[in-house]
Amino acid sequence: MRAVVMRNKKLITDDLPTPEPGEGEVLVKTLACGICGTDLHAFKHAEKFVERARRVGSPHETDFSRDIVMGHEFCSEIVDYGPSTTRNLKLGTRVCGIPRLVRPDRIHAVGFSCETPGGFAEYMPLTESLLFEVPEDLSSEQAALTEPMAVGRHAVEKAQLDRNDVALVIGCGPIGLAVVAALRLKGVRPIIAVDFSRRRRGFAEALGADVVVDPAEHSPYETWSEVAAWDNPEDAPPSHPLFPGSTHRPAVIFECVGIPGVIEQVMASAPRDARIVALGLCMERDQFEPAFGVLKELVLQFVIGYSLEEFGDTLRGIADGKIPVEPLITGKVGLEGVADAFEELYSPEKHAKIVVEPVR
Amino acid sequence: MRAVVMRNKKLITDDLPTPEPGEGEVLVKTLACGICGTDLHAFKHAEKFVERARRVGSPHETDFSRDIVMGHEFCSEIVDYGPSTTRNLKLGTRVCGIPRLVRPDRIHAVGFSCETPGGFAEYMPLTESLLFEVPEDLSSEQAALTEPMAVGRHAVEKAQLDRNDVALVIGCGPIGLAVVAALRLKGVRPIIAVDFSRRRRGFAEALGADVVVDPAEHSPYETWSEVAAWDNPEDAPPSHPLFPGSTHRPAVIFECVGIPGVIEQVMASAPRDARIVALGLCMERDQFEPAFGVLKELVLQFVIGYSLEEFGDTLRGIADGKIPVEPLITGKVGLEGVADAFEELYSPEKHAKIVVEPVR
Repeated sequence: MRAVVMRNKKLITDDLPTPEPGEGEVLVKTLACGICGTDLHAFKHAEKFVERARRVGSPHETDFSRDIVMGHEFCSEIVDYGPSTTRNLKLGTRVCGIPRLVRPDRIHAVGFSCETPGGFAEYMPLTESLLFEVPEDLSSEQAALTEPMAVGRHAVEKAQLDRNDVALVIGCGPIGLAVVAALRLKGVRPIIAVDFSRRRRGFAEALGADVVVDPAEHSPYETWSEVAAWDNPEDAPPSHPLFPGSTHRPAVIFECVGIPGVIEQVMASAPRDARIVALGLCMERDQFEPAFGVLKELVLQFVIGYSLEEFGDTLRGIADGKIPVEPLITGKVGLEGVADAFEELYSPEKHAKIVVEPVR
Repeated sequence: MRAVVMRNKKLITDDLPTPEPGEGEVLVKTLACGICGTDLHAFKHAEKFVERARRVGSPHETDFSRDIVMGHEFCSEIVDYGPSTTRNLKLGTRVCGIPRLVRPDRIHAVGFSCETPGGFAEYMPLTESLLFEVPEDLSSEQAALTEPMAVGRHAVEKAQLDRNDVALVIGCGPIGLAVVAALRLKGVRPIIAVDFSRRRRGFAEALGADVVVDPAEHSPYETWSEVAAWDNPEDAPPSHPLFPGSTHRPAVIFECVGIPGVIEQVMASAPRDARIVALGLCMERDQFEPAFGVLKELVLQFVIGYSLEEFGDTLRGIADGKIPVEPLITGKVGLEGVADAFEELYSPEKHAKIVVEPVR
C-alpha cells in the first residue's frame, strides 16, 4: 500500500506491506485523516518528544529511529475483519474512532507507533470496539474532525463549568476552536477567544465565540473584566475577609497554546479564583511562579484525550450541525502533498485543518 | 511598649510607642503569639520576599527597610476600644482572630506591616469584627494555634474531598500538621503523612495520621499504592479506553513544604488523576513539566488563608479537644527569646511551634 513514512526526519511516500487485522481488529481503508499539531511537533522535535514522553511515563513507545506512519484523526471504511470480531459494523461502513490499537501485549497509539500504521496510509488495522459509524449525510473529511473536537469536549466536561463561569480560550488553533465549539454546545456564555491571528479569530467567531481578542491590541483579561461583571451584584458569592469581594463572574481559562511560558503568563494575568484548564501538550520543561497561584488561589487542571462517550457525542454533534466544523477544513491533499502541508501548517494565517485523503 | 523589631535584618527588642486603636478597632495586650514559617522566610529573605510579593500583586505592602513587628498567630486580651466599636466583646476578653487591620485607605497584614505592629509586641490594634472570643477553658498558647490550624482547615475545605479520596500530606511542619488535623476532623481516612524528620512524623501521628512515611526510606507513592487499592473493585469508576482502569482510590496530595522543586517532584510521582493542593507559599520562581500534568490529568490547586467561618470552626475544634494542638507547643519564650527561637526553628528536629509570650 502507499503510505507517508516519517523516516530520517523526512516525510517520504513509499510502498509498505498492507497490514493484516489481528484479533478483535478490522482493516480499514482511510478516506480522510487530519494533520494534528502534535504531528507537527513530533516531526520537528522527534528526539525531544520521545525523551520527554519516556521521562513522564507515557504508556506508548514511539521510536523515531524506525519508520512511523502518522495520522490519528481519521475517517475510514471497513474493508476486512480479523478473527474474533463482532462484525456489527458491515463491510463498507464508514467509521471514525479512538486512535488506539488494543493488543494483548500493549496498547499502541495509532499514528505514533512503529508497530502499526496511522491514517497517512491507504490501510490500517483498528480495534473494532473503539469505532463509531459515521452517519450517511456527513462527509468523511468532517467526520475526521471528530477526534480533535472531542479533545475540546473532554476539556469542557472536566472543567465542570458552572452557569456563572466566563470562559477565556487562549489560542485558536484546532484545539482552541474545539473548546469554543464545546463551550457553545454546553451553553456557556460569553466565550472570549484569544489569538494573534486574524484568520483564527474568524474561525473562533464561526464556531460561536462571543468576543474575540487580539492580544497584541488588547489584554484578554481586561476584556474578561469588561464582560464578566455581575449583572446583579447580589449573585456574587460572599466576600472573603482577606480579599475584596468578588465583583466579577469566575474566569475559566483554557490554555490551548502549549508552548513554554504560556502557563506562567496566564497565571500571572489571571484574576483571583480563576481556573486554568491546560490542554496544550507542552513537552518542554517550563517555569512558573507558585506565588501567583497561591496568592490568587488559582486551580491549574491538566487534561488530555476523551472518553468513548465524549467521542461519540462529538461525532453526533458534528453530524447534527451543532458543531459546525466545515469552515475549519482549509485544505485537502493526497499522500504526495503531506510533506508540503506540514510546512504550510507552521504558519497560523494560512490554515486551520488540512485533511489528507490517502485514497483519491 | 516593649516589642521585637525586625530592623536591618536583625531582631531587636526595643521600646515603641503604644498604638492607639482607630475606628472599629480594639487595643489588645498579646498573651501568646506563635512564630510562623512565613516569619522565618521573611526574616531570612526579606528583599526577595518583598520583590516577589510585589511582582505577584500581593495587596499588602511590606517594606523591610523600615521597622516591622512580626507575629500574626496571636491570642490577646482586649484592653481598650477605638471609636465606632460595638464593644460586644468586653474588656478583659481573650480573643484570637484574622490578622488583618481593615482601614479605610487599605487593609494591613498584621505581622507584615510597617504601619501597625504584630503580636511580637505587648500591644497592637486589631479590627474588632475579625475577632473571636477564646473559650474560658482553653489556654492562650493553644488558642494562638488557631491561625495556622485554620490554614489546614481551609485547604481541606477547598479540596472538596470525596469519601473515596486518600490523602497524602507532604511535609509535616505546622501547616502539614494542620492539614492532618483537618482531614481527621473531616473523617477522611486513611491519611498518609510524609516527612524526613522523625519528630515531625511523631506529631503527625499524634494529630491523627494513619500511616507515616520517611521518604528517605520508602516512597510515599508506594505507600499510597499499598493502602489505596479499592477494597471492592466494583467501587472503581469506569475505565478510560486510553488508560488502564483505575485500580486505586484517588490521591489528594497536600504539598506543605513550599520550596522550589517540590511541586515538580510531586507531579512527577503522583498517580494518574491525582489532585495536588499546594499550601506552601513558595516565593521563588519554580520549574515543572506540564507533560506530567497533561499525561496524568493532574489538578494543581493553590490555596491560601481561610474564611471567618473556617477560623471560628477551627477555634471551636481546638477548644473541644478535637484538634489536639497541645503537643505541638514545643517551646515558649518571652520577647527577649524571639531571636534565638527563630534560629532554633530552622532545625526541624527540635520544634513544632514556639509561642512568644510578650507579657510574662
